[in-house]
Amino acid sequence: MINHGDNYIKDIRDAVLREVVVDKLTLTATTDFTRIKECDAILICVHTPLDKFRKPDMSYIESACNEIGKNMKAGTFISLESTTYPTTTEELMLPIIEKESGLKQGADFWLAYSPERVDPGNEQFHTKNTPQIIGAMSEDGLEIGMKIYSKAIDTLHPVSSPRIAEMVKILENTYRLVNISLINELALLSGKMDINIWEVIYAAKTKPFGFQAFYPGPGIGGHCIPLDPFYLEHIAKKYNFDLSMIHAAGHINMRMPHYMYIKIATALNRHKKAVNGSKILFLGVAYKPNINDERESPALEIMDIVAHKGGLVQYHDPHNGQVRTLNGYQYTSIPVGHSECNEESNAQLAEALAYAEVVVLTTNQSAFDVDFIQQHAKLIVDMRNMVKEASDKVYKL
Amino acid sequence: MINHGDNYIKDIRDAVLREVVVDKLTLTATTDFTRIKECDAILICVHTPLDKFRKPDMSYIESACNEIGKNMKAGTFISLESTTYPTTTEELMLPIIEKESGLKQGADFWLAYSPERVDPGNEQFHTKNTPQIIGAMSEDGLEIGMKIYSKAIDTLHPVSSPRIAEMVKILENTYRLVNISLINELALLSGKMDINIWEVIYAAKTKPFGFQAFYPGPGIGGHCIPLDPFYLEHIAKKYNFDLSMIHAAGHINMRMPHYMYIKIATALNRHKKAVNGSKILFLGVAYKPNINDERESPALEIMDIVAHKGGLVQYHDPHNGQVRTLNGYQYTSIPVGHSECNEESNAQLAEALAYAEVVVLTTNQSAFDVDFIQQHAKLIVDMRNMVKEASDKVYKL
Repeated sequence: MINHGDNYIKDIRDAVLREVVVDKLTLTATTDFTRIKECDAILICVHTPLDKFRKPDMSYIESACNEIGKNMKAGTFISLESTTYPTTTEELMLPIIEKESGLKQGADFWLAYSPERVDPGNEQFHTKNTPQIIGAMSEDGLEIGMKIYSKAIDTLHPVSSPRIAEMVKILENTYRLVNISLINELALLSGKMDINIWEVIYAAKTKPFGFQAFYPGPGIGGHCIPLDPFYLEHIAKKYNFDLSMIHAAGHINMRMPHYMYIKIATALNRHKKAVNGSKILFLGVAYKPNINDERESPALEIMDIVAHKGGLVQYHDPHNGQVRTLNGYQYTSIPVGHSECNEESNAQLAEALAYAEVVVLTTNQSAFDVDFIQQHAKLIVDMRNMVKEASDKVYKL
Repeated sequence: MINHGDNYIKDIRDAVLREVVVDKLTLTATTDFTRIKECDAILICVHTPLDKFRKPDMSYIESACNEIGKNMKAGTFISLESTTYPTTTEELMLPIIEKESGLKQGADFWLAYSPERVDPGNEQFHTKNTPQIIGAMSEDGLEIGMKIYSKAIDTLHPVSSPRIAEMVKILENTYRLVNISLINELALLSGKMDINIWEVIYAAKTKPFGFQAFYPGPGIGGHCIPLDPFYLEHIAKKYNFDLSMIHAAGHINMRMPHYMYIKIATALNRHKKAVNGSKILFLGVAYKPNINDERESPALEIMDIVAHKGGLVQYHDPHNGQVRTLNGYQYTSIPVGHSECNEESNAQLAEALAYAEVVVLTTNQSAFDVDFIQQHAKLIVDMRNMVKEASDKVYKL
């Protein structure tokens, strides 16, 4: 698709991809690793997932290093951009590349770590104007790396080693995990204490120093925040160290989809209905608004739980026409093929809203018309504070 | 002292106190509660400490409410500013005041909660220009409260109930506790992994969105952050709710002074010395820089631990001439009576620095001259990243 100039990532403008692939011929995609020897610089951006037991799966990095080592020429600069635990570059990558290539870091090639900081959907900060961290294994490697990255990025922040740069990326995402977990935990307590957590957060935000607002939700999603901190937890064990904050945060977030199921069941219960046999419509499956990425999205997990308990699951998302849940169920968005607002799809959506026993607001896609939803739905569970006025038929997180 | 215009709080300018007490006669201090009946408005700012078992000690609030109830006239507005757990105003204060006064909230008097947000030492934000939250028990009470507070505060943010306002204050300080704990935990791990956590934080700070920097230290201090979250933990138990993030954060911070003792012992050990019998000089006892408040300061706790292990403890702090530790030891700053920099006190400080086996930097008072300290000290344990260059004789958190 890339070689045809076909863009499948919503966060990248089609014209930008077409320009570099079709007009300027500066970007090519290939699976042929022998072409590595044509490269002066290699930036590795492979996936670093967790396996089913939540342990880092380093096989993509290892395999990339193997292929690079076998195929690279002398004089190559190599940088890893994937998020990973501190010491990966120095202790995992370096030995593989040196062994496979027979070359020496600092003499024949240069190795660095420079984490991407992309925030999909952010209109103000993109790759070019977001400062990027770089840590290399030697002084000359840092100098080469700075020259290469400065072609694409306005501001570089060099640090003294790859492990520092690795820790920077993990700190940034651990900060987010811990704060989202804290506010989720306080949201659950607030529910019991008859406190509207959203009103609390908006008020706390008026403090002009020492506070940054985070918002509760059905759980954390995406390919960074739910994963990165557990990379650190993994390596900490090697140092006989227990990361209790990350552990507690992980615990809360792992439970959030279950709490959300309870919320749905509680709402239905007030109408003397059970989840089992009820028609439940989810609005929004992406892990955050206005993107088409449903990786690690809590909405999918809640759909799985609800389906497992006998609920009749449907969903609607303007950016994600089809999804596959962790349990392997395939769902298609209602109305089918909806992307632009038109009368026909609006009528279909109104029908789906009225048909459902409960409508669950899981992602605050800005395309959603809250008034329209309220008008047609019988009962709403709002996990994103999308409905602003209190109402008998709205249950909030 | 207040009635003589003598200011003992460093954060308040002497002239401001003298003006309202001596010139304008608008401020009087008294312990005579019968004068309550002269007041149209009562703002309660009593201490809300934790007892020795870390349970909220509500006796100051209870006693204030008792005295107010007994002595107040009809038509009084009452607001609590002390930090406390949500529901205090509605469920603890209201019944006492109504019982003691025989008056009715909403008809004969009005009750509200409006937390102070003072940040001692903050040069930009003080009481007047920091937005203040207010939540009252009735609409008319909120209106009266807004009129009273608007005389002193530029921006008021009304919320729908006292419990919302109570939760706002606790959220703000819980956010700080949790983030300081997270960075302290990561600092301890980083020490084991040969990662300079300070360099990591400075690099992470270059991210222009979604990150706020916190710094590690010997533990948390002051009368807010170490206490407020445990108010929430206390009330959560009544709702059968376990606040795991606050629990984990509390655990880390309770252990920090002990880890700092280990750090001191480790530094001495490299010089083949034991804590027992060594002269150990602490620089800074205030819980944060440029204030004279050593309440809950971790420095005092570390001094207690070190003294208990046989260390010969001395300290120097330009703002705190004398301190009393939790274990009841009284210490006097060296050089004695030092407040202004002059040659004599500099010579005394140089002597004390050279005399000590190890100098421990516990508070980054801006009056400290780091070059001077490095020049005279044999060995330094730096808990605040005050020494910028690496050196053999400096051990960092």
